[in-house]
Amino acid sequence: MQSYEQSLQQTRKFLLEHDDYLVVSHIQPDGDAVSSTLAVGWLLSCLGKKYTMLNEGPIPQRMEYLWHAGEIANLAEGDLPREYSRVICVDCADFQRVGLTQRHFASDALIVNIDHHPTNNGYGSVNLIKPDAAATAEILFDLLKTFEVEWDIDIATALYTGLLTDTGGFRYSNTSPKVMAAVSELLELGVNGPMLAETLLEEMTLGQVKVLNRALSTLQLSPEGDIAWVSITPQDMLDCEAANEDLEGIVNYPRNIRGVEVGILFKVIHERAVKASFRSAGKVDVAALAQVFGGGGHTRAAGARIDATLEDAIPMVLQEVRRHL
Amino acid sequence: MQSYEQSLQQTRKFLLEHDDYLVVSHIQPDGDAVSSTLAVGWLLSCLGKKYTMLNEGPIPQRMEYLWHAGEIANLAEGDLPREYSRVICVDCADFQRVGLTQRHFASDALIVNIDHHPTNNGYGSVNLIKPDAAATAEILFDLLKTFEVEWDIDIATALYTGLLTDTGGFRYSNTSPKVMAAVSELLELGVNGPMLAETLLEEMTLGQVKVLNRALSTLQLSPEGDIAWVSITPQDMLDCEAANEDLEGIVNYPRNIRGVEVGILFKVIHERAVKASFRSAGKVDVAALAQVFGGGGHTRAAGARIDATLEDAIPMVLQEVRRHL
Repeated sequence: MQSYEQSLQQTRKFLLEHDDYLVVSHIQPDGDAVSSTLAVGWLLSCLGKKYTMLNEGPIPQRMEYLWHAGEIANLAEGDLPREYSRVICVDCADFQRVGLTQRHFASDALIVNIDHHPTNNGYGSVNLIKPDAAATAEILFDLLKTFEVEWDIDIATALYTGLLTDTGGFRYSNTSPKVMAAVSELLELGVNGPMLAETLLEEMTLGQVKVLNRALSTLQLSPEGDIAWVSITPQDMLDCEAANEDLEGIVNYPRNIRGVEVGILFKVIHERAVKASFRSAGKVDVAALAQVFGGGGHTRAAGARIDATLEDAIPMVLQEVRRHL
Repeated sequence: MQSYEQSLQQTRKFLLEHDDYLVVSHIQPDGDAVSSTLAVGWLLSCLGKKYTMLNEGPIPQRMEYLWHAGEIANLAEGDLPREYSRVICVDCADFQRVGLTQRHFASDALIVNIDHHPTNNGYGSVNLIKPDAAATAEILFDLLKTFEVEWDIDIATALYTGLLTDTGGFRYSNTSPKVMAAVSELLELGVNGPMLAETLLEEMTLGQVKVLNRALSTLQLSPEGDIAWVSITPQDMLDCEAANEDLEGIVNYPRNIRGVEVGILFKVIHERAVKASFRSAGKVDVAALAQVFGGGGHTRAAGARIDATLEDAIPMVLQEVRRHL
């Protein structure tokens, strides 16, 4: 197994020696995927290389401020005219994550696989993988340092975006000293951190606010104050014109109440099926809890589907949470 | 005017030469005030000095994890037995901010004034003031570096707390490259950043969640989608058993909706008086807006009291906001 430093050098060599690259990231690209795609594009443009950026699916509207974000082709809008024999995949834990963009990979394509997911299986010809990096943007930060290119606010903003989003605004446990040192350097280049935090972390859709309101209206606490839950029905989703992604973060509200150990969002799928999302304040392993119902996840964030009515599901789940407390 | 470096050295000398200090911060101490008090205490304990930490008012419950937080005396619980002739004031923009703790300053007390507020008028015998520091904790970070003491996780956690809270979780415009470089060093010492973010920024009281829900139930948007507002009545406050501080942050919800330029919270004080809190997404100077109603504030966060019923205040305010858009 080669060292990270060796992989950086190997990747550097690949980028210097070839030309005409296809740069792709994963389906439903998030902040780190978009930022990493653009960071590679920015580097290749500095090196005077030809490149094409491509995704299956559109980039999130809120990321349109990024350097050349509009140049990432969206496969949903039509195929590219040709195939590429030099491909750079960023933030894709496995090959299938590139989605339909693989249609444009030549059958003998050389692939560079740049990623931070611990589960990455090394599907590339060159693999630049750092499982303890907070984001793929962190790896690109290191890679770009190996080149003699002058960094500007565009590349700094792209890398900052990846670090900000993949660390949940510098709040998750992957926010390492290295991340913060990198962020310090990026701010020095003029990144507008407050604007990015507002745009990427604080902005909400109207549907999101409305459905949050519906959920909070159903808030209940256990007599001990250690379990709190809210629920959402299909009718709520319709009334609020809310999309599934608008539910993101709602389960944190019951969890964040002082004294609460387990917060739960019950989302009614249909009359006899409920999706329960669990968040733990630390004491309870909600992955184990979710497994009882055939679900899974992480120790502090997990979920399960329960084939029952909401009225039946709630006491069933509460009883199980109580057993885990 | 002496340089910051000179002030650091002068403060260092003061702390080395004397003994038996009183360390105070401002009334209603916040994260930076508490952290800075404890950081000075930690340093003095390393130097083998005698010291007493004192506040008017209790330290917030959520900060009880801090090193020796329980040792900060609360004046509300009774006077100290004596006066002090060596006093260190932290995070107090003017002398009156120390509140009743001044009862325990000897009339000829030497005062060290350590603060980051631009309005600080230099009331100390020694003034260590850096107006562009994000927090008083940032100044203490620099001060502590001038001593040969070994930093541990306790002092790192205290300084991190001050930086985290005074930058709104590293999101305000005072989040400088220097802050992030300091944070990187503090994380290296083992600070549990995710735990601190949860405890200090994400935890809510039950009253807070309930009153947020009430406010969101009143959400309205202008036909253009650029003004959004919510309201809270005295009855809501009673029903939710909410305190005034539970309203903090609510006005961000209307402001954070995509497309909204001005978010407003109308808080009914009594039948004929309403407090309007304004938040701007950037385009509108809400300080100027608030001034129209005899209020004031900053360009992006301001407020005013309007002597009218809620029904009359809303259209009056909306008309004025429209004029500023």
